[in-house]
Amino acid sequence: MTLAILVNGHAPADLGHAIAANDRGLHYGDGVFETALLIDGQVRFLDDHLKRLRESCERLSIRPPDPATLAAEITRVTGALHSGVLKIIITRGAGTRGYRPAHDVEATRIVALYAAPESPSSSGITLRWCDTRLGRNARLAGVKHLNRLEQVLAQAEWQDASIDDGLMLDTEGELVCATAGNVFIVREGALATPDLRFCGVRGIMRTRVLRAAAQLRIPASEEPLWPHDVEIADEVFLTNAIRGIRQVVALGSLQWSHGPVVERLKAAMEL
Amino acid sequence: MTLAILVNGHAPADLGHAIAANDRGLHYGDGVFETALLIDGQVRFLDDHLKRLRESCERLSIRPPDPATLAAEITRVTGALHSGVLKIIITRGAGTRGYRPAHDVEATRIVALYAAPESPSSSGITLRWCDTRLGRNARLAGVKHLNRLEQVLAQAEWQDASIDDGLMLDTEGELVCATAGNVFIVREGALATPDLRFCGVRGIMRTRVLRAAAQLRIPASEEPLWPHDVEIADEVFLTNAIRGIRQVVALGSLQWSHGPVVERLKAAMEL
Repeated sequence: MTLAILVNGHAPADLGHAIAANDRGLHYGDGVFETALLIDGQVRFLDDHLKRLRESCERLSIRPPDPATLAAEITRVTGALHSGVLKIIITRGAGTRGYRPAHDVEATRIVALYAAPESPSSSGITLRWCDTRLGRNARLAGVKHLNRLEQVLAQAEWQDASIDDGLMLDTEGELVCATAGNVFIVREGALATPDLRFCGVRGIMRTRVLRAAAQLRIPASEEPLWPHDVEIADEVFLTNAIRGIRQVVALGSLQWSHGPVVERLKAAMEL
Repeated sequence: MTLAILVNGHAPADLGHAIAANDRGLHYGDGVFETALLIDGQVRFLDDHLKRLRESCERLSIRPPDPATLAAEITRVTGALHSGVLKIIITRGAGTRGYRPAHDVEATRIVALYAAPESPSSSGITLRWCDTRLGRNARLAGVKHLNRLEQVLAQAEWQDASIDDGLMLDTEGELVCATAGNVFIVREGALATPDLRFCGVRGIMRTRVLRAAAQLRIPASEEPLWPHDVEIADEVFLTNAIRGIRQVVALGSLQWSHGPVVERLKAAMEL
């Protein structure tokens, strides 16, 4: 449910008629986005999200929004609310027909607040392997852009409500991420997560976990991982800015119970 | 310039506020499109475009639009006009937050008419090689979907107005297409075009050219091609539904002059 939305600073009179017919976000997925958690009236990791949004814009040569304007709009949509999901979309703007971006176009800013998600289960989550693969393209790797058909098709693969998310491989069979989050494994007390050199999103919570691991002196690496690495892992968990850290307890015929490293990270990060 | 537009059958009062804030086309590029040429008051190859649109929807499990409704809307936007570019976008519709598609959502139909493009130069076109690569994903190969960031970034590579288009390779270096069209080469009197098994759009004009070649008894194949195949080609040409067949006369330091096979095809197809 959309609780509040501003499009270029204006609250649309009608949510069904809010976006320009020629917006490049609609025509080409030509834009980037962020989703952040509003909790206790504060946007968690807001500075991290705004920094990544700027970097994403730079990667695609989209003019980043004015920081003060964007900050004011975030304050307006979160208002007096205590919890929810903040979504910011920046598209390259409205334009004429054709792929070529014009240089004099103002980016489109969409700042929206949605209802808070259900609280995550503390007992751990169940995953599946997705059939849909991720194409490799280093030019777009790491960026939270609006070309998300692969994730849509992956989530469409299952309807079973007992499955919380699916792990995705790239077209060469390398492990990349979950459909809506990054993935970590624990092996002999050390963390590892896919290096995302070809695809996937460099998640805010992923970066926070790597930082927390360094502070806790837990060895951690970003490296190429394969399904076999998951199969022999001592612990597996997903990260995402909204749901935090979620321990995986089942994946096909695999099962995991106690996750001491996951628990240490969650405690240290107060998640 | 937008001459006319219908969104789900309604002419928006304000083009700047025409699309729902939660449309999945905007959020994920979750949709497909067609661009066709209106010429002499008729949409050229309309049946081909409508057939591919249905097939594209099926590939992504998007509910295809009702044929009679869509046909009526095309008639309304083309109206009494003689020329222009018809663009049809079908998105999976407006939805709640999250990648997972709901099953009870109506697809969004956008039917728009834009001003006609400039007449193509009959003297041939000049290309460049694009640095931006195309990611490989057989799941999406051939489909004219809305995830088009790679094409946007490729066209952003040059501003030189003397360059008409750029050739794109996939991430493994295989030739795929131009940023806005398919590519053919001629070798010893035979046609060849990339087979698009990993990426690229299966163009309407590409299919028409292959059919015309068969009728003219010109050998033609869809196969893996590489930059070297272009470099040693006797003729090179691009196809696209709007601009037809365009002979390439220059690509970097390469030059081509007379194109007898191109000319035979254009004459036979009345382009």
